[in-house]
Amino acid sequence: MVEPETRPRGGIDLGGTKIQAIVADADHKVLGEARQPTPTTGGPQDVINALADVMRQACVGAGLNADELGGVGLGSPGDIDARQGTIAQAGNLPNWTGAVPVAEMLGAALGTSVAIGNDVSVATRAEFELGAGKPYGSLLGVFWGTGVGGGLILDGKEWEGRAAAGEIGHMVVKRGGALCPCGRHGCMEAYAGRKAMEVEARRRHDEGEHTDLFKIMKERGRDRLTSGVWERALKHGDQLAEHLFERAYLALGAGVASAINLLDVEAVVLGGGLGVRFGDAAAARLAEAMRPHLFNDDRPPAVAVAALGDYGGALGAAMLVGP
Amino acid sequence: MVEPETRPRGGIDLGGTKIQAIVADADHKVLGEARQPTPTTGGPQDVINALADVMRQACVGAGLNADELGGVGLGSPGDIDARQGTIAQAGNLPNWTGAVPVAEMLGAALGTSVAIGNDVSVATRAEFELGAGKPYGSLLGVFWGTGVGGGLILDGKEWEGRAAAGEIGHMVVKRGGALCPCGRHGCMEAYAGRKAMEVEARRRHDEGEHTDLFKIMKERGRDRLTSGVWERALKHGDQLAEHLFERAYLALGAGVASAINLLDVEAVVLGGGLGVRFGDAAAARLAEAMRPHLFNDDRPPAVAVAALGDYGGALGAAMLVGP
Repeated sequence: MVEPETRPRGGIDLGGTKIQAIVADADHKVLGEARQPTPTTGGPQDVINALADVMRQACVGAGLNADELGGVGLGSPGDIDARQGTIAQAGNLPNWTGAVPVAEMLGAALGTSVAIGNDVSVATRAEFELGAGKPYGSLLGVFWGTGVGGGLILDGKEWEGRAAAGEIGHMVVKRGGALCPCGRHGCMEAYAGRKAMEVEARRRHDEGEHTDLFKIMKERGRDRLTSGVWERALKHGDQLAEHLFERAYLALGAGVASAINLLDVEAVVLGGGLGVRFGDAAAARLAEAMRPHLFNDDRPPAVAVAALGDYGGALGAAMLVGP
Repeated sequence: MVEPETRPRGGIDLGGTKIQAIVADADHKVLGEARQPTPTTGGPQDVINALADVMRQACVGAGLNADELGGVGLGSPGDIDARQGTIAQAGNLPNWTGAVPVAEMLGAALGTSVAIGNDVSVATRAEFELGAGKPYGSLLGVFWGTGVGGGLILDGKEWEGRAAAGEIGHMVVKRGGALCPCGRHGCMEAYAGRKAMEVEARRRHDEGEHTDLFKIMKERGRDRLTSGVWERALKHGDQLAEHLFERAYLALGAGVASAINLLDVEAVVLGGGLGVRFGDAAAARLAEAMRPHLFNDDRPPAVAVAALGDYGGALGAAMLVGP
């Protein structure tokens, strides 16, 4: 028999933009946290150095050393092999080629064991166990940010298919439609992902359409349209921003309703950078945009905003530490 | 302890067009079968009389009386309450209002117990247990006929959500697209369902487009475009028929690929009147139409034709008889 792990655990959410680390106790209480930007240059070793660094900072906040942790969980984008502890095809990370043995490398750096999981899956599990998904037995997590990721809990268990389930952002909402950053056409993410929305905003701006989006971006010292830039533009009634958000909601409505028609889960939990920033207003607008496409429109699923905010991914990652 | 049922079981597949009944032994071997058209006039009692009649005919083939059966399973469209034994909202059945206690009424007529399940779910289970889905642990059943129905087996178990999962025909493949018989726009079924295809064929024919579809229909003494009528027209190179089939495959490709992107199951089993009639050619064309939309296009799911043919629904219905 294996003793349950009672020591504090580390959790790291490796995003395309930032790395968020936490230390949590066995009751999932956050004892320390730290974050820093994800490296955009260098290679895998630089990313792993950054992961180790931010995890150590979170440990300082919790008043312990990394090697005193019961283990560290890492939620990552890309193609995860949990058993091998490798991450491949992480397109948003710098010069990432082949299957990088992240668990081994990060474990060596921190002096503890490291478990790896898909970023969206672990965030969905965290919301299911601790957050907005607690009242439900089955749910769809929709993480709306740079892209649109999906996580599934069916009858209390994560559904990962042959390891790659949850690509809700690449459900087709308009055959022959807009080009998606993935290279395909008509995906939900081609309309609703922040990256795709920025491409479209830039194209229209270059064509002479008026918008303050890029002015706000520069004023804020950003090099891309962050959630904060979009929010500011919307607050000022920027028409292009409003138009592209409406377009995003219509695509999200069709795609998420399609997923509900197929799966009939109890709830949708809306997270991600944009989902959390626009919160209840986004959840209400999504529910409205889903309605025309729901086959059982007299019994729509609940649509709730992710409740764990920025810590959701890292808390879910910490849950990877077993038993 | 309940003794396992060893007596022959009845299975009935209640379709919008025909009723298929079988008698099967405990090893799912078909001992007798019968079929007849589904009543298009009258009301629930007429449908139940027809169900009882065709079940009795199948019993004659098997050399027994209906009351000697270990029970009868019925796969039905509409809103099924398996526990109450009722069927509601069966739009394709004549004058069907409210929740009709079919299990009780049919059980009384046949002198045996009756269990009810969703037609697509039971057909999917039959393919999983006995047919094209046997090699796989998870699959999506796609039943392509008058409409497009879906059934899910995840980790060996049916997934029914809050009882209404599997409405794959109403996944949106083109936001703002064609009108679906369900009243919504852009559903996969609006392009691929035989009913919707007939509406579109008639519209174009009325507008002067050339097609032999309706001539063939009349020659065959039909009042609608059956799978056989479509097949004949396609064999003769009818351009409108070819165009509408191509349009159907593109919609099926986008919708089924979307379902795979979300669920990443091992296999797609293609059944239904059109799926079975066009068989391997349809499966190959579907796989091809899915490819541009598959997020993991290096690892497409298997696409197999339903192996139980016309008996699949009735065999699956017989499996409802427990234990």
